[in-house]
Amino acid sequence: MDQVKEFNDYRTRMNERILAQDNLVIKRFWSLDHQTYQDGALSAKTKELLGLVASMVLRCDDCIKYHLGKCHELKTTREEIFEVFAIANLVGGSICVPHTRRAVEYWDVLEKQEA
Amino acid sequence: MDQVKEFNDYRTRMNERILAQDNLVIKRFWSLDHQTYQDGALSAKTKELLGLVASMVLRCDDCIKYHLGKCHELKTTREEIFEVFAIANLVGGSICVPHTRRAVEYWDVLEKQEA
Amino acid sequence: MDQVKEFNDYRTRMNERILAQDNLVIKRFWSLDHQTYQDGALSAKTKELLGLVASMVLRCDDCIKYHLGKCHELKTTREEIFEVFAIANLVGGSICVPHTRRAVEYWDVLEKQEA
Amino acid sequence: MDQVKEFNDYRTRMNERILAQDNLVIKRFWSLDHQTYQDGALSAKTKELLGLVASMVLRCDDCIKYHLGKCHELKTTREEIFEVFAIANLVGGSICVPHTRRAVEYWDVLEKQEA
Amino acid sequence: MDQVKEFNDYRTRMNERILAQDNLVIKRFWSLDHQTYQDGALSAKTKELLGLVASMVLRCDDCIKYHLGKCHELKTTREEIFEVFAIANLVGGSICVPHTRRAVEYWDVLEKQEA
Amino acid sequence: MDQVKEFNDYRTRMNERILAQDNLVIKRFWSLDHQTYQDGALSAKTKELLGLVASMVLRCDDCIKYHLGKCHELKTTREEIFEVFAIANLVGGSICVPHTRRAVEYWDVLEKQEA
Repeated sequence: MDQVKEFNDYRTRMNERILAQDNLVIKRFWSLDHQTYQDGALSAKTKELLGLVASMVLRCDDCIKYHLGKCHELKTTREEIFEVFAIANLVGGSICVPHTRRAVEYWDVLEKQEA
Repeated sequence: MDQVKEFNDYRTRMNERILAQDNLVIKRFWSLDHQTYQDGALSAKTKELLGLVASMVLRCDDCIKYHLGKCHELKTTREEIFEVFAIANLVGGSICVPHTRRAVEYWDVLEKQEA
Repeated sequence: MDQVKEFNDYRTRMNERILAQDNLVIKRFWSLDHQTYQDGALSAKTKELLGLVASMVLRCDDCIKYHLGKCHELKTTREEIFEVFAIANLVGGSICVPHTRRAVEYWDVLEKQEA
Repeated sequence: MDQVKEFNDYRTRMNERILAQDNLVIKRFWSLDHQTYQDGALSAKTKELLGLVASMVLRCDDCIKYHLGKCHELKTTREEIFEVFAIANLVGGSICVPHTRRAVEYWDVLEKQEA
Repeated sequence: MDQVKEFNDYRTRMNERILAQDNLVIKRFWSLDHQTYQDGALSAKTKELLGLVASMVLRCDDCIKYHLGKCHELKTTREEIFEVFAIANLVGGSICVPHTRRAVEYWDVLEKQEA
Repeated sequence: MDQVKEFNDYRTRMNERILAQDNLVIKRFWSLDHQTYQDGALSAKTKELLGLVASMVLRCDDCIKYHLGKCHELKTTREEIFEVFAIANLVGGSICVPHTRRAVEYWDVLEKQEA
């Protein structure tokens, strides 16, 4: 199974498990999280780039994958993605390099699926 | 092998390996770490909840698993655990969501073993 | 002016300024944040202790002050507060020590006001 | 003296002091940092927004001020800035709220100077 | 395949993939990163120890592995490595303990290969 | 009052206040922290450099000041200190730059006092 499907399946399964608990704060937080990335004064695409760079400097591989998926859906180019990576590396330092490697690997899969 | 046993076995094996080195600072730090979570002005259970939320906002999956195991031993309920997750998500942000997924998966295994 | 009043005044003034902007996501996030610390499966007091330890390991002095204020309102004792500090120092390391100093200074002011 | 001038003066004075040391790695890193935010596949404005959100989730007030200054020069609107703040708060959590307060205070000064 | 080879192979393959993109900022950053650890006022060995402790308190397993490999090449002893671990644990707290376990496991492989 | 004296006085006053509380975990942690930086397989000076770079990538100004003071006592040169800063900037990223400015300002005071 490719890693995009594996990531999405696990995410879906556990999200259902968490929402089944009916913790109101978590439910509202997740709903708000979804709302945050909608078109507004900034476009949805710009917001996904912002989510991506934030995930990268905070170094969360799963968050990076999620935003890469969204960026891909919104027609972000490879050149644009690498400029986000460059900013993340400069702001967050070389500690972000291993996350950049995994991010590029994931982006490659996303691009290959589209071909 | 279930992931609770896998986690505990690796932890035990490497702890032995580290303590065999006889680095006095590490040995004392670990002994002090153990002492920190004993009953005192706050109960051991409250302290494990504190250790859990701290591990979650600092986003260390292994530390989360360790404290989940302790919380489970100390009869913490699923509702209480999810309220800790809610606070961790609010304080630490959506970057904690993937750790919440893995934490819920681990808690599910802990609950199943008890059944 | 004592630092408790200074902290609260600045907080109130800037919160008004931010809410005046009418950014829906921020407004909902703040409202949800408030809701997170209400009595539930865990007591409001335990939740404030959780908020405090999370703020301390993430090393945000203003968040620490806010939760110290709440803990004080909810009749947390000095011994209990120091046990939270102990856990924060062990989990988060000596990097939390300067924040502990400022936290104790702030707690001292809170206790003096009550006298 | 207003805080924009105070921030810029200190920044300039210490940058000179650091560059006077002639540490090649630091000099090249700073030059590269400057280059990172130039127009490319992404516009300079989008890159400053990326720098801003990264600074906010990593919680560095001085970095936030720096990018707010650049965003202001590049004609970012108040609504756009608040959407960046919203994303930072959601991704980074309530621990970012005190930084948001100080950021809004600084943005207010920037807007007033332009009037 | 042992984990040293696995780590190095993945690192080499993805580095090539990233450099193929020709993003100038990333290329220069990586070249600068290499330059940072050369002999200077401090020896290359001391610099690798600094890179190791920084990687440990920032809790990046891949960065830890990389610097452990370099430290091993530069004839760092096991006792020295454990003193770096001790400092990392004290400064960064018990949240670094799981990274210490994985670091010791990796160092053990490095030592075994040399035998 | 110069900032070295101000830093040391506040540190001493609050340390006394904290130790007066007689929280055993905090007392032992602080004693262990002291022990960590003694001569061993690595020299006290190397250990202070390790403490400095760790403080810098974790971005704690007070911890940086403390280790700068110790490094100065142990006859670290300005060139060596700047090489530590360079590593911290590369590993930790541009988010460390404002901390580098304040660190250089503090080091300048330390050097002037010695003159």
